[in-house]
Amino acid sequence: MINKLVENIKRTNAPIVVGLDPTLAFVPEHVQKKAFAEYGETLEGAAEAIWQFNKAIVDCVYDLIPAVKPQIAMYEQFGLPGLSAFKKTVDYCKEKGLVVIGDIKRGDIGSTSAAYAVGHIGKVQVGSHTYAPFDEDFITLNPYMGSDSINPFVKVCQEEKKGLFVLVKTSNPSSGEFQDRLVDGRPLYEWVGEKVNEWGARCMGDEYSYVGAVVGATYPEQGRILRKLMPKAFILVPGYGAQGGTGADLVHFFNEDGLGAIVNSSRGIIAAYKQEAYASYGAEHFADASRAAVEAMVADITGALNQPKATW
Amino acid sequence: MINKLVENIKRTNAPIVVGLDPTLAFVPEHVQKKAFAEYGETLEGAAEAIWQFNKAIVDCVYDLIPAVKPQIAMYEQFGLPGLSAFKKTVDYCKEKGLVVIGDIKRGDIGSTSAAYAVGHIGKVQVGSHTYAPFDEDFITLNPYMGSDSINPFVKVCQEEKKGLFVLVKTSNPSSGEFQDRLVDGRPLYEWVGEKVNEWGARCMGDEYSYVGAVVGATYPEQGRILRKLMPKAFILVPGYGAQGGTGADLVHFFNEDGLGAIVNSSRGIIAAYKQEAYASYGAEHFADASRAAVEAMVADITGALNQPKATW
Repeated sequence: MINKLVENIKRTNAPIVVGLDPTLAFVPEHVQKKAFAEYGETLEGAAEAIWQFNKAIVDCVYDLIPAVKPQIAMYEQFGLPGLSAFKKTVDYCKEKGLVVIGDIKRGDIGSTSAAYAVGHIGKVQVGSHTYAPFDEDFITLNPYMGSDSINPFVKVCQEEKKGLFVLVKTSNPSSGEFQDRLVDGRPLYEWVGEKVNEWGARCMGDEYSYVGAVVGATYPEQGRILRKLMPKAFILVPGYGAQGGTGADLVHFFNEDGLGAIVNSSRGIIAAYKQEAYASYGAEHFADASRAAVEAMVADITGALNQPKATW
Repeated sequence: MINKLVENIKRTNAPIVVGLDPTLAFVPEHVQKKAFAEYGETLEGAAEAIWQFNKAIVDCVYDLIPAVKPQIAMYEQFGLPGLSAFKKTVDYCKEKGLVVIGDIKRGDIGSTSAAYAVGHIGKVQVGSHTYAPFDEDFITLNPYMGSDSINPFVKVCQEEKKGLFVLVKTSNPSSGEFQDRLVDGRPLYEWVGEKVNEWGARCMGDEYSYVGAVVGATYPEQGRILRKLMPKAFILVPGYGAQGGTGADLVHFFNEDGLGAIVNSSRGIIAAYKQEAYASYGAEHFADASRAAVEAMVADITGALNQPKATW
């Protein structure tokens, strides 16, 4: 699946991923009204609204992008109907040829991680049949519990050619509270990065490993260090746009081959019509506003990548 | 909800929690057959089998115990039907007067944690209505991303009187890989424990905080230290039984009041009929075997608590 991600990036020339993290506040009123007319102001109605919102955006941007990243929390907040919308979104995006990164940040003791792994990227056995319940292409993982919480996922990746992005240095303001603490003179996130290399070495694609890392756009200096520390790991970079990162911050997340990173934007794309820059589209044409925002983001990032690199 | 947990423990005199972590391998053949006859060898059939398995066990043990801890991964592995069985289990256990600890180990950037919080322990707004989608009493959280990933959960706990258990020192063999690393001379888990105190101080019940901690039974020395470090935090202790912990290992997880800890056993209770000690019950009477295993576990732990404490 890492090979497909690389292919998709080369084809679109867009090292970006659209975060499908819908909240009802992002969904235009006419979409909400239609869904509520059919299902009432219920969890089912909310789920229908976010699914229709997603579908319209995907239809409008899928040819420009290699991948999407639905954040499962935004669906889980609407209970079972919400998770049904998550599943529909995953399936629909795969039909459109997109790589789907399930942003689920799971991780647990071995037997429990094995259950998450079959549920999200593998197959579960029921009697003499097998099923792929959520069937994302990649998922994100939390490494706090150590190697035996990650290994069951690596095993499923080897079998299914799926992929992982392990949290290393996250984009949020307080990520440093534990991740930056010095251990034998090096911040904890570097030790986690070393482990990502170990896990990833067991699971290599053609150029990059199936095991990647999450490093926030909001920490460009750390990105530069981690890029060198984990040369074979693709880096999923959240925090662009709404969280504060810009294209110029991102160049050191990439390798010399112009690959190795994929930058996520969620609100900045899916709620573009609410920004002044795209207000002229109006709520009716929210998906066209998302397309324009994707084009601007790609131009910002590829523009920055085409500048001569500063040698820090 | 921490007050209800304390009340339930005092009433049952059993500081234990039964982990409802069903796998199909634990479900007796006659229960599987009946479910598959109705739904086929499908995800729905698997979900029905684990739900009927849970229900039989809960019916047989609910009067002996204060709380249950369904591990959501075991349901999530069966996709949407599995999560429907999770929800049925949560609701049924609450009807039976049990405190329900959703073992979900979530945690993300602020806006995403807020979505998980409303989905699992709070209420989500849909138009002019609100819904409590999963509605557990407590949930477990992963702290790797720091305070701003935990704060949205604390806020919902304050509003809803729900509770949290934050991973501090987990029970699995490789938990030390990151959690034990020394930061300014102290292991990382102690720094996380200090934060649990901070988060918990904003959210106090009568005797204990709404914000508790997870510390594995397999690390009794660390349990002793963390007990003193977090005097107002209830400690959820996994790793008893199948993972290797025994009653004698556990005494230092408790405070002098005999409270402050709740010990989980999953396989040891729900798959008791597969153990030699309870084999005479047979698969037909699996739930009675679980009851006997609960009684033995309570006797082991309260027996150890009633011994004079060694002063390490």
